[in-house]
Amino acid sequence: MNFVEKLLTASRSNQSLLCIGLDPDPELMPGIDVFQFNKEIIDATSDLVCAYKPNLAFYEALGIDGLKAMSKTIAHIPDSIPVIGDAKRGDIASSSKAYARALFDTFGFDAVTLNPYMGYDSIAPFIDYTDKGIFILCKTSNPSASDFQELPSLEPAPGTGTIPLFERVALKAVAWNTRGNIGLVVGATYPRQLRRIRELCPEMPLIIPGIGTQGGDVAATVRYGVDANREKAIINSSRQIIYASKESDSALAARREALKLRDLINHHLETMR
Amino acid sequence: MNFVEKLLTASRSNQSLLCIGLDPDPELMPGIDVFQFNKEIIDATSDLVCAYKPNLAFYEALGIDGLKAMSKTIAHIPDSIPVIGDAKRGDIASSSKAYARALFDTFGFDAVTLNPYMGYDSIAPFIDYTDKGIFILCKTSNPSASDFQELPSLEPAPGTGTIPLFERVALKAVAWNTRGNIGLVVGATYPRQLRRIRELCPEMPLIIPGIGTQGGDVAATVRYGVDANREKAIINSSRQIIYASKESDSALAARREALKLRDLINHHLETMR
Repeated sequence: MNFVEKLLTASRSNQSLLCIGLDPDPELMPGIDVFQFNKEIIDATSDLVCAYKPNLAFYEALGIDGLKAMSKTIAHIPDSIPVIGDAKRGDIASSSKAYARALFDTFGFDAVTLNPYMGYDSIAPFIDYTDKGIFILCKTSNPSASDFQELPSLEPAPGTGTIPLFERVALKAVAWNTRGNIGLVVGATYPRQLRRIRELCPEMPLIIPGIGTQGGDVAATVRYGVDANREKAIINSSRQIIYASKESDSALAARREALKLRDLINHHLETMR
Repeated sequence: MNFVEKLLTASRSNQSLLCIGLDPDPELMPGIDVFQFNKEIIDATSDLVCAYKPNLAFYEALGIDGLKAMSKTIAHIPDSIPVIGDAKRGDIASSSKAYARALFDTFGFDAVTLNPYMGYDSIAPFIDYTDKGIFILCKTSNPSASDFQELPSLEPAPGTGTIPLFERVALKAVAWNTRGNIGLVVGATYPRQLRRIRELCPEMPLIIPGIGTQGGDVAATVRYGVDANREKAIINSSRQIIYASKESDSALAARREALKLRDLINHHLETMR
Protein backbone atom coordinates (compact mmCIF):
# COMPACT_ATOMS: atom_id res chain seq x y z
CA MET A 1 0.00 0.00 0.00
CA ASN A 2 1.51 3.34 -0.97
CA PHE A 3 1.26 6.51 1.08
CA VAL A 4 -1.85 7.97 -0.56
CA GLU A 5 -3.69 4.65 -0.20
CA LYS A 6 -2.64 4.43 3.44
CA LEU A 7 -3.78 8.01 4.04
CA LEU A 8 -7.17 7.47 2.40
CA THR A 9 -7.70 4.19 4.26
CA ALA A 10 -7.02 5.84 7.63
CA SER A 11 -9.04 8.91 6.70
CA ARG A 12 -12.08 6.85 5.65
CA SER A 13 -11.84 4.43 8.53
CA ASN A 14 -11.70 7.24 11.11
CA GLN A 15 -13.94 9.57 9.08
CA SER A 16 -11.32 12.20 9.63
CA LEU A 17 -9.23 14.81 7.86
CA LEU A 18 -7.59 15.73 11.16
CA CYS A 19 -3.85 15.35 11.63
CA ILE A 20 -2.34 15.86 15.07
CA GLY A 21 1.06 17.51 15.25
CA LEU A 22 3.16 15.79 17.90
CA ASP A 23 5.33 18.76 18.82
CA PRO A 24 6.45 18.33 22.42
CA ASP A 25 7.68 21.69 23.66
CA PRO A 26 9.54 21.43 26.97
CA GLU A 27 8.68 25.06 27.70
CA LEU A 28 5.04 23.98 27.86
CA MET A 29 5.57 20.68 29.67
CA PRO A 30 8.59 20.93 31.95
CA GLY A 31 9.77 17.65 33.41
CA ILE A 32 7.39 15.44 31.46
CA ASP A 33 8.74 12.38 29.61
CA VAL A 34 8.28 13.11 25.92
CA PHE A 35 7.51 9.58 24.81
CA GLN A 36 5.04 9.05 27.64
CA PHE A 37 3.33 12.33 26.77
CA ASN A 38 3.05 11.35 23.09
CA LYS A 39 1.95 7.82 23.94
CA GLU A 40 -0.97 9.07 25.98
CA ILE A 41 -2.02 11.48 23.24
CA ILE A 42 -1.80 8.74 20.60
CA ASP A 43 -3.69 6.19 22.69
CA ALA A 44 -6.42 8.76 23.28
CA THR A 45 -6.81 9.93 19.66
CA SER A 46 -5.77 7.24 17.17
CA ASP A 47 -9.40 6.56 16.20
CA LEU A 48 -9.93 10.23 15.38
CA VAL A 49 -7.13 11.14 12.97
CA CYS A 50 -5.98 10.54 9.40
CA ALA A 51 -2.32 11.03 10.31
CA TYR A 52 0.18 12.13 12.96
CA LYS A 53 2.87 14.66 12.21
CA PRO A 54 5.89 14.91 14.53
CA ASN A 55 7.98 18.02 13.84
CA LEU A 56 11.62 17.01 14.13
CA ALA A 57 12.71 20.37 15.56
CA PHE A 58 11.24 19.60 18.97
CA TYR A 59 12.98 16.24 19.22
CA GLU A 60 16.34 17.54 17.98
CA ALA A 61 16.19 20.31 20.57
CA LEU A 62 16.27 17.56 23.22
CA GLY A 63 19.32 15.92 21.66
CA ILE A 64 19.90 12.17 21.56
CA ASP A 65 17.19 11.55 24.16
CA GLY A 66 14.71 13.51 22.08
CA LEU A 67 15.46 11.49 18.97
CA LYS A 68 15.08 8.26 20.93
CA ALA A 69 11.69 9.50 22.10
CA MET A 70 10.78 10.29 18.49
CA SER A 71 11.71 6.78 17.36
CA LYS A 72 9.66 5.23 20.14
CA THR A 73 6.76 7.52 19.26
CA ILE A 74 6.83 6.47 15.60
CA ALA A 75 6.94 2.82 16.64
CA HIS A 76 4.00 3.30 18.98
CA ILE A 77 1.65 4.81 16.36
CA PRO A 78 -0.68 2.10 15.01
CA ASP A 79 0.44 0.75 11.61
CA SER A 80 -2.85 1.84 10.08
CA ILE A 81 -2.15 5.54 10.73
CA PRO A 82 0.41 7.28 8.49
CA VAL A 83 3.20 9.20 10.20
CA ILE A 84 4.43 12.35 8.50
CA GLY A 85 7.89 13.55 9.47
CA ASP A 86 7.72 17.34 9.44
CA ALA A 87 11.38 17.83 8.60
CA LYS A 88 11.32 20.56 5.91
CA ARG A 89 14.62 19.23 4.63
CA GLY A 90 16.32 20.24 1.42
CA ASP A 91 19.84 19.41 0.26
CA ILE A 92 21.58 18.12 -2.83
CA ALA A 93 23.21 15.05 -4.31
CA SER A 94 24.58 12.61 -1.74
CA SER A 95 23.31 14.80 1.14
CA SER A 96 19.76 14.65 -0.19
CA LYS A 97 20.04 10.87 -0.55
CA ALA A 98 21.28 10.68 3.02
CA TYR A 99 18.27 12.68 4.27
CA ALA A 100 15.92 10.37 2.38
CA ARG A 101 17.62 7.39 4.01
CA ALA A 102 17.47 9.06 7.42
CA LEU A 103 13.78 9.90 7.25
CA PHE A 104 12.40 6.88 5.40
CA ASP A 105 14.76 4.02 6.28
CA THR A 106 16.31 4.98 9.61
CA PHE A 107 13.38 6.74 11.30
CA GLY A 108 10.67 5.00 9.25
CA PHE A 109 8.34 7.90 8.41
CA ASP A 110 5.58 7.25 5.86
CA ALA A 111 5.93 10.74 4.45
CA VAL A 112 8.03 13.88 4.93
CA THR A 113 7.91 17.60 4.29
CA LEU A 114 10.57 19.14 2.04
CA ASN A 115 11.70 22.64 1.10
CA PRO A 116 11.72 23.44 -2.66
CA TYR A 117 14.32 26.23 -2.75
CA MET A 118 17.15 24.05 -4.09
CA GLY A 119 15.05 22.66 -6.96
CA TYR A 120 14.36 19.29 -8.53
CA ASP A 121 17.54 17.41 -7.75
CA SER A 122 17.04 18.11 -4.02
CA ILE A 123 13.65 16.34 -4.21
CA ALA A 124 14.52 13.51 -6.61
CA PRO A 125 16.01 11.03 -4.10
CA PHE A 126 12.76 11.20 -2.13
CA ILE A 127 10.60 10.67 -5.22
CA ASP A 128 12.46 7.41 -5.79
CA TYR A 129 10.76 6.05 -2.66
CA THR A 130 7.54 5.46 -4.57
CA ASP A 131 5.62 4.06 -1.59
CA LYS A 132 6.37 7.10 0.55
CA GLY A 133 4.77 10.54 0.53
CA ILE A 134 6.52 13.86 -0.14
CA PHE A 135 5.01 17.19 0.82
CA ILE A 136 6.73 20.22 -0.67
CA LEU A 137 6.39 23.57 1.11
CA CYS A 138 4.34 25.76 -1.21
CA LYS A 139 2.63 28.56 0.73
CA THR A 140 3.47 28.34 4.39
CA SER A 141 1.24 29.53 7.22
CA ASN A 142 3.55 32.12 8.82
CA PRO A 143 3.35 35.91 8.40
CA SER A 144 6.77 36.12 6.67
CA ALA A 145 5.71 33.53 4.08
CA SER A 146 5.15 36.49 1.78
CA ASP A 147 8.81 37.58 1.85
CA PHE A 148 9.59 35.30 -1.08
CA GLN A 149 6.61 33.04 -1.75
CA GLU A 150 4.45 35.93 -2.99
CA LEU A 151 7.10 37.57 -5.17
CA PRO A 152 5.74 37.95 -8.69
CA SER A 153 7.87 35.58 -10.74
CA LEU A 154 8.36 35.21 -14.46
CA GLU A 155 9.37 32.12 -16.35
CA PRO A 156 12.94 32.54 -17.60
CA ALA A 157 11.49 32.57 -21.13
CA PRO A 158 9.97 35.99 -21.71
CA GLY A 159 6.29 36.53 -22.29
CA THR A 160 4.92 33.69 -20.18
CA GLY A 161 3.31 35.89 -17.61
CA THR A 162 3.80 36.71 -13.97
CA ILE A 163 2.59 34.53 -11.10
CA PRO A 164 3.65 34.40 -7.46
CA LEU A 165 6.60 32.15 -6.64
CA PHE A 166 4.42 29.72 -4.68
CA GLU A 167 2.40 29.05 -7.85
CA ARG A 168 5.63 28.27 -9.71
CA VAL A 169 6.39 25.78 -6.95
CA ALA A 170 2.93 24.23 -7.31
CA LEU A 171 3.35 23.94 -11.10
CA LYS A 172 6.79 22.36 -10.73
CA ALA A 173 5.39 19.91 -8.19
CA VAL A 174 2.78 18.84 -10.73
CA ALA A 175 5.48 18.40 -13.37
CA TRP A 176 7.68 16.40 -10.98
CA ASN A 177 4.82 14.16 -9.81
CA THR A 178 5.45 11.31 -12.26
CA ARG A 179 5.25 8.71 -9.48
CA GLY A 180 2.11 10.10 -7.85
CA ASN A 181 3.73 10.54 -4.45
CA ILE A 182 4.01 14.34 -4.21
CA GLY A 183 1.77 16.64 -2.18
CA LEU A 184 2.09 20.21 -0.92
CA VAL A 185 2.05 22.16 2.34
CA VAL A 186 -0.32 25.12 2.28
CA GLY A 187 -1.15 27.30 5.27
CA ALA A 188 -4.76 27.63 6.39
CA THR A 189 -3.97 31.26 7.12
CA TYR A 190 -4.02 31.99 3.36
CA PRO A 191 -7.41 30.69 2.10
CA ARG A 192 -7.21 32.51 -1.26
CA GLN A 193 -3.87 30.88 -2.02
CA LEU A 194 -5.14 27.51 -0.76
CA ARG A 195 -8.02 27.73 -3.22
CA ARG A 196 -5.64 28.61 -6.06
CA ILE A 197 -3.27 25.76 -5.21
CA ARG A 198 -6.16 23.27 -5.11
CA GLU A 199 -7.14 24.49 -8.61
CA LEU A 200 -3.59 23.95 -9.87
CA CYS A 201 -3.19 20.58 -8.12
CA PRO A 202 -6.64 18.95 -8.06
CA GLU A 203 -5.28 15.47 -7.28
CA MET A 204 -2.61 16.13 -4.68
CA PRO A 205 -2.86 15.57 -0.96
CA LEU A 206 -2.36 18.85 0.89
CA ILE A 207 -1.08 19.26 4.43
CA ILE A 208 -2.81 22.32 5.83
CA PRO A 209 -1.40 23.71 9.09
CA GLY A 210 -2.41 27.02 10.62
CA ILE A 211 -5.88 26.55 12.07
CA GLY A 212 -6.29 27.12 15.78
CA THR A 213 -3.57 29.20 17.40
CA GLN A 214 -2.42 30.67 14.09
CA GLY A 215 -5.94 31.79 13.20
CA GLY A 216 -6.79 29.85 10.02
CA ASP A 217 -10.53 29.50 9.44
CA VAL A 218 -11.75 25.89 9.54
CA ALA A 219 -14.68 26.41 7.18
CA ALA A 220 -12.53 27.98 4.45
CA THR A 221 -9.80 25.38 4.99
CA VAL A 222 -12.25 22.56 4.39
CA ARG A 223 -14.00 24.23 1.47
CA TYR A 224 -10.84 25.15 -0.42
CA GLY A 225 -8.56 22.35 0.77
CA VAL A 226 -10.33 19.12 -0.15
CA ASP A 227 -10.23 17.46 -3.56
CA ALA A 228 -13.27 16.67 -5.72
CA ASN A 229 -14.02 13.63 -3.55
CA ARG A 230 -13.81 15.83 -0.46
CA GLU A 231 -10.64 14.03 0.64
CA LYS A 232 -6.85 14.50 0.58
CA ALA A 233 -6.82 17.48 2.92
CA ILE A 234 -4.65 16.77 5.96
CA ILE A 235 -5.74 19.46 8.37
CA ASN A 236 -3.15 19.79 11.09
CA SER A 237 -3.54 20.98 14.63
CA SER A 238 -0.77 20.74 17.20
CA ARG A 239 -0.88 22.78 20.35
CA GLN A 240 -4.63 23.37 20.38
CA ILE A 241 -4.96 19.61 20.89
CA ILE A 242 -1.86 18.39 22.66
CA TYR A 243 -1.83 21.29 25.10
CA ALA A 244 -5.59 21.46 25.55
CA SER A 245 -4.88 20.99 29.23
CA LYS A 246 -1.67 21.39 31.14
CA GLU A 247 -2.96 19.26 33.98
CA SER A 248 -2.61 15.51 34.34
CA ASP A 249 -5.78 14.99 32.28
CA SER A 250 -3.96 16.14 29.11
CA ALA A 251 -4.79 12.97 27.15
CA LEU A 252 -8.48 13.23 27.92
CA ALA A 253 -8.47 16.93 27.07
CA ALA A 254 -6.64 16.15 23.84
CA ARG A 255 -9.28 13.59 22.91
CA ARG A 256 -12.04 16.08 23.63
CA GLU A 257 -10.39 18.74 21.44
CA ALA A 258 -9.57 16.26 18.66
CA LEU A 259 -13.12 14.98 18.59
CA LYS A 260 -14.50 18.51 18.48
CA LEU A 261 -12.19 19.50 15.65
CA ARG A 262 -12.72 16.32 13.62
CA ASP A 263 -16.48 16.78 13.91
CA LEU A 264 -16.30 20.47 13.05
CA ILE A 265 -14.33 19.59 9.92
CA ASN A 266 -16.91 16.93 9.06
CA HIS A 267 -19.71 19.38 9.66
CA HIS A 268 -18.18 21.75 7.10
CA LEU A 269 -17.75 18.83 4.70
CA GLU A 270 -21.44 18.04 5.06
CA THR A 271 -22.44 21.57 4.15
CA MET A 272 -20.57 21.12 0.84
CA ARG A 273 -22.93 18.41 -0.36
CA MET B 1 34.29 36.39 20.57
CA ASN B 2 31.46 36.28 18.02
CA PHE B 3 31.40 33.98 15.01
CA VAL B 4 32.96 36.36 12.50
CA GLU B 5 35.80 37.15 14.88
CA LYS B 6 36.36 33.45 15.52
CA LEU B 7 36.33 32.75 11.78
CA LEU B 8 38.82 35.51 11.00
CA THR B 9 41.09 34.46 13.85
CA ALA B 10 41.23 30.87 12.63
CA SER B 11 41.56 31.94 9.02
CA ARG B 12 44.47 34.29 9.76
CA SER B 13 46.19 31.91 12.13
CA ASN B 14 46.09 29.04 9.62
CA GLN B 15 46.45 31.34 6.60
CA SER B 16 43.51 29.52 5.12
CA LEU B 17 40.14 30.06 3.46
CA LEU B 18 39.65 26.29 3.29
CA CYS B 19 36.73 24.62 5.05
CA ILE B 20 36.56 20.84 5.18
CA GLY B 21 33.12 19.24 4.93
CA LEU B 22 32.91 16.33 7.37
CA ASP B 23 30.36 14.26 5.43
CA PRO B 24 30.90 10.60 6.30
CA ASP B 25 29.15 8.52 3.65
CA PRO B 26 28.89 4.86 4.65
CA GLU B 27 28.67 3.91 0.97
CA LEU B 28 32.22 5.16 0.60
CA MET B 29 33.59 3.82 3.89
CA PRO B 30 31.78 0.62 4.82
CA GLY B 31 32.44 -0.63 8.33
CA ILE B 32 34.49 2.35 9.45
CA ASP B 33 33.67 4.07 12.75
CA VAL B 34 32.44 7.54 11.86
CA PHE B 35 33.89 9.38 14.84
CA GLN B 36 37.26 7.68 14.45
CA PHE B 37 37.28 8.58 10.75
CA ASN B 38 36.47 12.22 11.50
CA LYS B 39 38.94 12.37 14.37
CA GLU B 40 41.81 11.29 12.14
CA ILE B 41 40.85 13.83 9.47
CA ILE B 42 40.60 16.61 12.07
CA ASP B 43 43.90 15.72 13.75
CA ALA B 44 45.60 15.73 10.35
CA THR B 45 44.16 19.03 9.07
CA SER B 46 43.26 21.39 11.91
CA ASP B 47 46.24 23.64 11.20
CA LEU B 48 45.14 24.04 7.57
CA VAL B 49 41.51 25.15 7.75
CA CYS B 50 39.39 28.15 8.67
CA ALA B 51 36.41 25.96 9.61
CA TYR B 52 34.88 22.48 9.56
CA LYS B 53 31.40 21.88 8.22
CA PRO B 54 29.59 18.64 9.16
CA ASN B 55 26.47 18.08 7.03
CA LEU B 56 23.79 16.72 9.36
CA ALA B 57 22.24 14.52 6.67
CA PHE B 58 25.05 11.97 6.87
CA TYR B 59 24.79 11.65 10.64
CA GLU B 60 21.00 11.45 10.70
CA ALA B 61 21.14 8.67 8.09
CA LEU B 62 23.01 6.62 10.71
CA GLY B 63 20.37 7.26 13.35
CA ILE B 64 21.11 7.73 17.04
CA ASP B 65 24.64 6.34 16.64
CA GLY B 66 25.32 8.82 13.86
CA LEU B 67 24.19 11.76 15.97
CA LYS B 68 26.35 10.57 18.85
CA ALA B 69 29.30 10.47 16.45
CA MET B 70 28.44 14.00 15.32
CA SER B 71 28.41 15.27 18.91
CA LYS B 72 31.76 13.62 19.61
CA THR B 73 33.15 15.11 16.38
CA ILE B 74 32.05 18.62 17.34
CA ALA B 75 33.62 18.18 20.79
CA HIS B 76 36.87 16.97 19.25
CA ILE B 77 37.38 19.96 16.94
CA PRO B 78 39.81 22.43 18.57
CA ASP B 79 38.03 25.39 20.18
CA SER B 80 39.92 27.78 17.93
CA ILE B 81 38.29 26.38 14.77
CA PRO B 82 34.64 27.30 14.09
CA VAL B 83 32.25 24.45 13.38
CA ILE B 84 29.46 25.13 10.90
CA GLY B 85 26.42 22.84 11.10
CA ASP B 86 25.28 22.36 7.52
CA ALA B 87 21.63 21.81 8.43
CA LYS B 88 19.75 23.89 5.84
CA ARG B 89 16.87 24.16 8.29
CA GLY B 90 13.85 26.37 7.94
CA ASP B 91 10.68 26.38 10.03
CA ILE B 92 8.46 28.84 11.83
CA ALA B 93 7.55 30.12 15.27
CA SER B 94 8.16 27.63 18.09
CA SER B 95 9.61 25.07 15.61
CA SER B 96 12.21 27.54 14.40
CA LYS B 97 13.12 28.36 18.00
CA ALA B 98 13.47 24.64 18.69
CA TYR B 99 15.84 24.22 15.72
CA ALA B 100 17.93 27.14 16.97
CA ARG B 101 18.12 25.51 20.40
CA ALA B 102 18.96 22.14 18.83
CA LEU B 103 21.78 23.44 16.66
CA PHE B 104 23.32 26.09 18.90
CA ASP B 105 22.60 24.90 22.46
CA THR B 106 22.19 21.13 22.21
CA PHE B 107 24.73 20.31 19.49
CA GLY B 108 26.89 23.40 20.04
CA PHE B 109 27.59 24.55 16.49
CA ASP B 110 29.23 27.96 16.03
CA ALA B 111 27.18 28.61 12.89
CA VAL B 112 24.49 26.95 10.78
CA THR B 113 23.08 27.03 7.27
CA LEU B 114 19.41 27.96 6.82
CA ASN B 115 16.89 27.92 3.99
CA PRO B 116 15.21 31.25 3.20
CA TYR B 117 11.96 30.01 1.58
CA MET B 118 9.77 30.63 4.65
CA GLY B 119 10.98 34.20 5.12
CA TYR B 120 12.14 36.42 7.96
CA ASP B 121 10.34 34.88 10.91
CA SER B 122 11.95 31.51 10.12
CA ILE B 123 15.39 33.13 10.50
CA ALA B 124 14.70 35.49 13.40
CA PRO B 125 15.20 33.01 16.29
CA PHE B 126 18.69 32.28 14.95
CA ILE B 127 19.56 35.96 14.57
CA ASP B 128 18.86 36.34 18.29
CA TYR B 129 21.98 34.23 18.95
CA THR B 130 24.21 37.21 18.27
CA ASP B 131 27.47 35.33 18.89
CA LYS B 132 26.59 32.61 16.38
CA GLY B 133 26.79 32.67 12.59
CA ILE B 134 23.88 32.19 10.18
CA PHE B 135 24.41 31.30 6.52
CA ILE B 136 21.33 31.64 4.35
CA LEU B 137 21.13 29.59 1.15
CA CYS B 138 21.29 32.09 -1.70
CA LYS B 139 22.53 30.47 -4.93
CA THR B 140 23.26 26.80 -4.34
CA SER B 141 25.83 24.78 -6.26
CA ASN B 142 23.55 22.10 -7.75
CA PRO B 143 22.27 21.98 -11.36
CA SER B 144 18.60 22.38 -10.29
CA ALA B 145 19.44 25.53 -8.31
CA SER B 146 18.04 27.40 -11.30
CA ASP B 147 14.53 25.92 -10.94
CA PHE B 148 13.55 28.72 -8.57
CA GLN B 149 16.64 30.71 -7.60
CA GLU B 150 17.04 32.15 -11.12
CA LEU B 151 13.39 33.01 -11.65
CA PRO B 152 13.10 36.68 -12.56
CA SER B 153 11.31 38.22 -9.60
CA LEU B 154 9.62 41.55 -9.12
CA GLU B 155 9.08 43.41 -5.91
CA PRO B 156 5.40 43.30 -4.97
CA ALA B 157 5.32 47.07 -5.58
CA PRO B 158 5.24 47.62 -9.34
CA GLY B 159 7.99 49.35 -11.23
CA THR B 160 10.95 48.24 -9.10
CA GLY B 161 12.54 46.10 -11.75
CA THR B 162 13.23 42.43 -12.24
CA ILE B 163 16.08 40.53 -10.62
CA PRO B 164 16.58 36.80 -10.05
CA LEU B 165 15.11 35.37 -6.86
CA PHE B 166 18.56 34.67 -5.39
CA GLU B 167 19.34 38.41 -5.57
CA ARG B 168 16.12 39.13 -3.68
CA VAL B 169 17.37 36.70 -1.04
CA ALA B 170 20.74 38.47 -0.90
CA LEU B 171 19.06 41.87 -0.53
CA LYS B 172 16.77 40.59 2.23
CA ALA B 173 19.78 39.10 4.01
CA VAL B 174 21.42 42.53 3.98
CA ALA B 175 18.26 44.10 5.37
CA TRP B 176 17.96 41.45 8.10
CA ASN B 177 21.63 41.69 9.12
CA THR B 178 21.12 44.16 11.96
CA ARG B 179 23.23 42.06 14.33
CA GLY B 180 26.08 41.42 11.89
CA ASN B 181 25.81 37.64 12.15
CA ILE B 182 24.36 36.75 8.73
CA GLY B 183 26.26 35.27 5.78
CA LEU B 184 25.23 33.46 2.60
CA VAL B 185 25.83 30.15 0.83
CA VAL B 186 26.84 30.56 -2.81
CA GLY B 187 27.92 27.74 -5.10
CA ALA B 188 31.35 27.91 -6.74
CA THR B 189 29.70 26.40 -9.81
CA TYR B 190 28.08 29.78 -10.56
CA PRO B 191 30.95 32.32 -10.63
CA ARG B 192 28.91 35.08 -12.30
CA GLN B 193 26.30 34.87 -9.55
CA LEU B 194 29.02 34.68 -6.89
CA ARG B 195 30.49 37.91 -8.20
CA ARG B 196 27.07 39.58 -8.17
CA ILE B 197 26.34 38.41 -4.61
CA ARG B 198 29.72 39.71 -3.40
CA GLU B 199 28.83 43.09 -4.95
CA LEU B 200 25.48 43.11 -3.13
CA CYS B 201 26.95 41.89 0.17
CA PRO B 202 30.49 43.27 0.39
CA GLU B 203 30.81 42.62 4.14
CA MET B 204 29.27 39.18 4.58
CA PRO B 205 31.07 35.91 5.06
CA LEU B 206 30.21 33.52 2.22
CA ILE B 207 30.30 29.74 2.37
CA ILE B 208 31.27 28.57 -1.09
CA PRO B 209 30.81 24.85 -1.81
CA GLY B 210 31.13 23.26 -5.24
CA ILE B 211 34.83 23.21 -6.09
CA GLY B 212 36.39 19.83 -6.73
CA THR B 213 33.94 17.04 -7.61
CA GLN B 214 31.21 19.50 -8.59
CA GLY B 215 33.51 21.36 -10.95
CA GLY B 216 33.69 24.90 -9.53
CA ASP B 217 36.83 26.77 -10.59
CA VAL B 218 39.15 27.66 -7.70
CA ALA B 219 40.60 30.78 -9.32
CA ALA B 220 37.17 32.32 -10.01
CA THR B 221 35.94 31.28 -6.58
CA VAL B 222 38.78 33.12 -4.89
CA ARG B 223 38.62 36.17 -7.15
CA TYR B 224 34.87 36.69 -6.82
CA GLY B 225 34.31 35.22 -3.36
CA VAL B 226 36.59 37.18 -1.05
CA ASP B 227 35.80 40.56 0.49
CA ALA B 228 37.86 43.74 0.04
CA ASN B 229 40.38 42.45 2.61
CA ARG B 230 40.60 39.16 0.70
CA GLU B 231 38.90 37.36 3.57
CA LYS B 232 35.46 36.03 4.57
CA ALA B 233 35.29 33.40 1.85
CA ILE B 234 34.82 29.94 3.36
CA ILE B 235 35.72 27.67 0.49
CA ASN B 236 34.42 24.20 1.20
CA SER B 237 35.67 20.87 -0.01
CA SER B 238 34.34 17.57 1.28
CA ARG B 239 34.92 14.36 -0.62
CA GLN B 240 37.96 15.55 -2.57
CA ILE B 241 39.71 15.76 0.81
CA ILE B 242 38.13 13.23 3.14
CA TYR B 243 38.04 10.51 0.47
CA ALA B 244 41.38 11.39 -1.08
CA SER B 245 42.34 7.81 -0.36
CA LYS B 246 40.16 4.86 0.51
CA GLU B 247 43.08 3.02 2.04
CA SER B 248 44.19 3.13 5.67
CA ASP B 249 46.31 6.22 4.92
CA SER B 250 43.16 8.34 4.51
CA ALA B 251 44.20 10.92 7.10
CA LEU B 252 47.60 11.45 5.48
CA ALA B 253 46.00 11.66 2.05
CA ALA B 254 43.48 14.14 3.44
CA ARG B 255 46.27 16.32 4.80
CA ARG B 256 48.08 16.22 1.46
CA GLU B 257 44.92 17.28 -0.42
CA ALA B 258 44.00 19.94 2.14
CA LEU B 259 47.48 21.43 2.00
CA LYS B 260 47.40 21.45 -1.79
CA LEU B 261 44.01 23.14 -1.88
CA ARG B 262 44.79 25.68 0.83
CA ASP B 263 47.99 26.63 -0.98
CA LEU B 264 46.24 26.81 -4.35
CA ILE B 265 43.68 29.18 -2.84
CA ASN B 266 46.48 31.27 -1.34
CA HIS B 267 48.28 31.29 -4.67
CA HIS B 268 45.19 32.78 -6.32
CA LEU B 269 44.91 35.29 -3.46
CA GLU B 270 48.52 36.35 -4.12
CA THR B 271 47.79 37.01 -7.79
CA MET B 272 45.10 39.50 -6.71
CA ARG B 273 47.60 41.84 -5.10
